[in-house]
Amino acid sequence: MTDLPDTNLVMLTLVKPEGELEVFLERRPMPNPAPHEVLVKVLATPINPSDLGLLLGAADMSTARASTRDGLPLVTADIPAPGMRAMAGRIGDALPIGNEGCGLVVKAGSSPEAQALLGKTVALIGGEIYAEYRCLPAQMCMLLPDGTDPRDGASCFVNPLTSLAFTETMRMEGHSALVHTAAASNLGQMLVKICAKDGIPLVNIVRSEAQVALLKSIGAAHVINSSDEDFMDQLTAALTETGATCGFDAIGGGKLAGQILACMEAAAVKRMASYSRYGSDTFKQVYIYGALDLGPTILNRSFGLTWSLSGFLLTPFLQKAGREVNMRLRQRVVDELTTTFKSHYSHEISLTDALALDIIAEYNAKRTGEKYLIRPHG
Amino acid sequence: MTDLPDTNLVMLTLVKPEGELEVFLERRPMPNPAPHEVLVKVLATPINPSDLGLLLGAADMSTARASTRDGLPLVTADIPAPGMRAMAGRIGDALPIGNEGCGLVVKAGSSPEAQALLGKTVALIGGEIYAEYRCLPAQMCMLLPDGTDPRDGASCFVNPLTSLAFTETMRMEGHSALVHTAAASNLGQMLVKICAKDGIPLVNIVRSEAQVALLKSIGAAHVINSSDEDFMDQLTAALTETGATCGFDAIGGGKLAGQILACMEAAAVKRMASYSRYGSDTFKQVYIYGALDLGPTILNRSFGLTWSLSGFLLTPFLQKAGREVNMRLRQRVVDELTTTFKSHYSHEISLTDALALDIIAEYNAKRTGEKYLIRPHG
Repeated sequence: MTDLPDTNLVMLTLVKPEGELEVFLERRPMPNPAPHEVLVKVLATPINPSDLGLLLGAADMSTARASTRDGLPLVTADIPAPGMRAMAGRIGDALPIGNEGCGLVVKAGSSPEAQALLGKTVALIGGEIYAEYRCLPAQMCMLLPDGTDPRDGASCFVNPLTSLAFTETMRMEGHSALVHTAAASNLGQMLVKICAKDGIPLVNIVRSEAQVALLKSIGAAHVINSSDEDFMDQLTAALTETGATCGFDAIGGGKLAGQILACMEAAAVKRMASYSRYGSDTFKQVYIYGALDLGPTILNRSFGLTWSLSGFLLTPFLQKAGREVNMRLRQRVVDELTTTFKSHYSHEISLTDALALDIIAEYNAKRTGEKYLIRPHG
Repeated sequence: MTDLPDTNLVMLTLVKPEGELEVFLERRPMPNPAPHEVLVKVLATPINPSDLGLLLGAADMSTARASTRDGLPLVTADIPAPGMRAMAGRIGDALPIGNEGCGLVVKAGSSPEAQALLGKTVALIGGEIYAEYRCLPAQMCMLLPDGTDPRDGASCFVNPLTSLAFTETMRMEGHSALVHTAAASNLGQMLVKICAKDGIPLVNIVRSEAQVALLKSIGAAHVINSSDEDFMDQLTAALTETGATCGFDAIGGGKLAGQILACMEAAAVKRMASYSRYGSDTFKQVYIYGALDLGPTILNRSFGLTWSLSGFLLTPFLQKAGREVNMRLRQRVVDELTTTFKSHYSHEISLTDALALDIIAEYNAKRTGEKYLIRPHG
């Protein structure tokens, strides 16, 4: 624990007032933990869609140029004028990034809770994790069993807690079954396993036959391919069978969220005894939690007047749910880390690789089944 | 009260399985009130957008043909195939229409509550009011002061209770100011007066300078013309000043609902101390309660993840609000019938006029400032 380097390599993202994005690596002094803090050697940190939003912002990546500064990689790209409006709050601030990761505690502050983690493998959350080292409060770490593979510990928070939050939200709001889109994702596979274990009917929507096969192979009962011609009929049939009136949509753009509401309504109307011009009185909720399609959401509103489409974000959910629910969900993640919450990565890259233009283009495509893991120490 | 005719002229709307709409008048036997019922001579009944949905359904009115049957007018129009799907629940049922109206109680059942209304002017709700007479339970009538002009009593329920429901919903859900679209409508003018009286900041969105002038003339403080080039800037400024985070949208289609959410977010971001990639944590709610634009709702989702877009319907709101709130709102309508809740009609027509193709085309255009009142007895 004594041979720490003097500097720490960190990734930063900066929006410049003239409409330019800079993403770069920088050497900063090695931080020294305060009494309540620990210094974690970051061994693995995933590139989640939620990281990409901060990393690349509203930049037009077709304009990206690669160069170096002080011998470290630098990527520059133009930000179109409408995009700059959304970036107003971050202009001129070089922001560190990386939501979550897994590492080894190599130095600890003097407090008992920090000392208790020394030498341990931990999962960590809290940003600034695309770096060789991260210094943060001990309470932002989750202790993992000794010998946990950093690959297994890297994604302990975002996907596991988000997928658990879906089933918690479903129950809290009085629904009894779920719909999920982009369902072949790592998160989607976790949700399939959670729902199977908890007896929650789940309708999975995917975009290809390969994804149908993947989800069926892990036991999903309802998997629907939105590329099929009779997609709406298949979806209505599955919603009729499951009674799902709550959906979580990772895609955001396009017609899918509205199609789910329309099929929920068609399933509800089938259960009605008589016609109402206002549609069914069954409450239908779809949450948009991602933006795999950045284009506009298009709602054809063929679903009566008893519906809601809302944004969904993990942190406010956890705050609202309270400490007891948080502890219960975290414990479940640790208990089922290599089963329910097992993540799969298609590529492992270094911090420097992560700023190569061809690799950026690959992970920024956000293809289902392709997931990148940064290994800052190889 | 003794010279009642033997028959009652009623309007009906029928979707035929072969994809055709029929709207027609029919003579039916004069109903006789049961003990708890009254027979009301309908003197005035408005054509609300909510009536048009049932009246014309999903028919393509450019195909409408006029004819007669048994000497009474009959309008026929084709229903496109996608429209027929939404009409599935009403195929083959000739449905009476007309949500609300005002009339004179000309015959009453034997119960004391029915007898108490005999000879009185009442407002009535409950459908089937596009007719010369309507027989209904006494409790579905609201007693109006003797001598009330039927024009003033015709729209006691839908617009007054809907506009009051907006302010009630705003308070129940923890907001402190409102946004309203198509705000120069009868309902919009009521809302301006309610908010002025109750001290609720209200941002009115209209589509023309004439409508701006109209609303300013009745005392509206914030009126924004969505046709202005700097509409979004004006709206953001008004939302910043009022702090409105709850909106009611009568239009439904197009970009407006999303623009309101985007400007609410821009106003909220101004109040934030530091940047968040997820946007503000200010909860933003827009309700769609009408469909003046039947086209798709288009959301550009430039408003973070703390938002909700929902359908809004009066009846479920009133059911959820409970009896005490209902009584309070109704009493306020009666108390302020010729002030706050004064309706304006641009045209008065007969039941037969209402089935003339040129007149249908006019009222079906749902132009702000044009409102039709049916006077079944001239």
